Amino acid sequence: MKIAIDAMGGDNAPELIVKGSILARDEYNVEILLYGKENEIKNIVEKNTSDFNNIEIINAEEVITNDDKPVMALRRKKDSSLVKALNTVKDKQANAIVSAGSTGALLAGATLMVGRINGIERPAIGALIPNMYGGFALLIDSGANVDSKPEFLYDFAMMGDIYLKQVLNITSPRIALANIGSEKAKGDKLTVDTYGLLENTTLPLNFIGNIEAREILQGKADIIVCDGFVGNMILKTLEGSVLELMKGLKSALLSSARSKIGAALIKPALKDFKSKFDYSEHGGAPILGVKEIVVKAHGSSDEKAFKNAIRQAKICCENNVNGLIQESIMRR
Amino acid sequence: MKIAIDAMGGDNAPELIVKGSILARDEYNVEILLYGKENEIKNIVEKNTSDFNNIEIINAEEVITNDDKPVMALRRKKDSSLVKALNTVKDKQANAIVSAGSTGALLAGATLMVGRINGIERPAIGALIPNMYGGFALLIDSGANVDSKPEFLYDFAMMGDIYLKQVLNITSPRIALANIGSEKAKGDKLTVDTYGLLENTTLPLNFIGNIEAREILQGKADIIVCDGFVGNMILKTLEGSVLELMKGLKSALLSSARSKIGAALIKPALKDFKSKFDYSEHGGAPILGVKEIVVKAHGSSDEKAFKNAIRQAKICCENNVNGLIQESIMRR
Repeated sequence: MKIAIDAMGGDNAPELIVKGSILARDEYNVEILLYGKENEIKNIVEKNTSDFNNIEIINAEEVITNDDKPVMALRRKKDSSLVKALNTVKDKQANAIVSAGSTGALLAGATLMVGRINGIERPAIGALIPNMYGGFALLIDSGANVDSKPEFLYDFAMMGDIYLKQVLNITSPRIALANIGSEKAKGDKLTVDTYGLLENTTLPLNFIGNIEAREILQGKADIIVCDGFVGNMILKTLEGSVLELMKGLKSALLSSARSKIGAALIKPALKDFKSKFDYSEHGGAPILGVKEIVVKAHGSSDEKAFKNAIRQAKICCENNVNGLIQESIMRR
Repeated sequence: MKIAIDAMGGDNAPELIVKGSILARDEYNVEILLYGKENEIKNIVEKNTSDFNNIEIINAEEVITNDDKPVMALRRKKDSSLVKALNTVKDKQANAIVSAGSTGALLAGATLMVGRINGIERPAIGALIPNMYGGFALLIDSGANVDSKPEFLYDFAMMGDIYLKQVLNITSPRIALANIGSEKAKGDKLTVDTYGLLENTTLPLNFIGNIEAREILQGKADIIVCDGFVGNMILKTLEGSVLELMKGLKSALLSSARSKIGAALIKPALKDFKSKFDYSEHGGAPILGVKEIVVKAHGSSDEKAFKNAIRQAKICCENNVNGLIQESIMRR
């Protein structure tokens, strides 16, 4: 299996991206195609392995950054690592693409270059949110689409269901609709109408009703369905609060001699605690609804996180996630 | 000045609600009208003060709870503390109402019984979100309205601006639009259109553009404008993550003998840290856009929080918040 890697995307690119890719090759027996600045990547590869099997480096001089306008960048930066990697997948010369770079550019590329699966109007990003109990939930859509229609959200639920069953081995994922109250009639027009669709589905979806945002970290649902605007608000609010709380906690602990001693004592416990929010275990966020397997690794991915994102991409291919989505479209 | 108090609403009602009301009477020189079960309230009053001046108890046998359907409850429970208190305000026998009870019922009562200010299509709830730096932001609308139009959000900004200027003494509140990106063209149709309205306002609004959800706790804006569905998601995600993180932290700290000793040492620092998220200092959330002053105190209000909510209501009256909103409507 061949995985195309955007080696220049992400906060830690290319170093940790290349390292993570080598790890994935070793552990998962995949062939990795590394797109990016050839000499730079070659140096990193040589530093990290003496076995060059199943590693191909394809030179790409340009880099698409978070500051680039996605669609414009795809058009103008034809010699970028992302565009070249996307083309390889589109041309079926690789089975999947993984990138830790600009979400917008990857999404635009997935939709415009790779193309939507027939019958899916809007591809969606599914982000895995860890909870306090060692589990996680797939938040779909976490930011790809705004002004969604109920039919889009219904498809998000269906695609998320297949992903969790096939890739994360959850037998009957509990699907909930993000809403401002638990009752069926609660919410805006979009959620009320989506509730109706999910309730009356003929697909084997385990729809458990509405979930309020304060329950998201409590592990009450495996899939949280929402419009991308809402999903982005949830995801970014969560990320922001974890970050700010940890920062606040740290400065509180350093505020006195007494608390500094205490801080030293709780360090192992705190590390344990923080690991619960570790995104790296779960790898990346799949972009579901496009013709090939596209995985967005977290922008701050280290080698372990990136390796896991590659594993996800591999399982998606092996377990025929896209084929199953296509089948579901026929039956919905 | 007379403040009508729903003495039976809230997790700590009537005990701490009555206590907080007595504190407010003492500190702010207001007359308090306590609505609820007369004997119960009388007992609490007598236990907490020997001075019965400016305290009136009005018997109400029924209680509206969070489980009641708001509009139905207002219609059926005519002898409830909330309905009676609302009627007093509506009849201009009191200057304001404060309740820590059901948000839905208070909101429905404010809109249907007290009535909207002419020209305001949708009253909104403004929740104060504390940040890590001792400040806060007003999140408006935090849950009263779904499927908002741009004109509603524009009015939320205008009302929030008056509230922060008049009640919280912020000279030129920075108004931001909750969005999924910082650029003008980002977001769903609602936010893009609202951006246009705020950008071209003739009112003295300090509009600073879009704010992403992860920046909310960073103190970058004083007013965060959004639809109530989105606001509720932000607010509840924040509340949920703070709660779950604190719970997780606590159990981590109790996980070993070593961390328990550490925990004892960091206790004062941790208390300090937690106080930053203390909602009680800021009192309640105003329901803006209705003809009289209506303040929703946090459901878990203790006496201090409730006292502060009464102070807010008092300042709203003194500084003519509703009159200024009316003036703004003429000029917008």
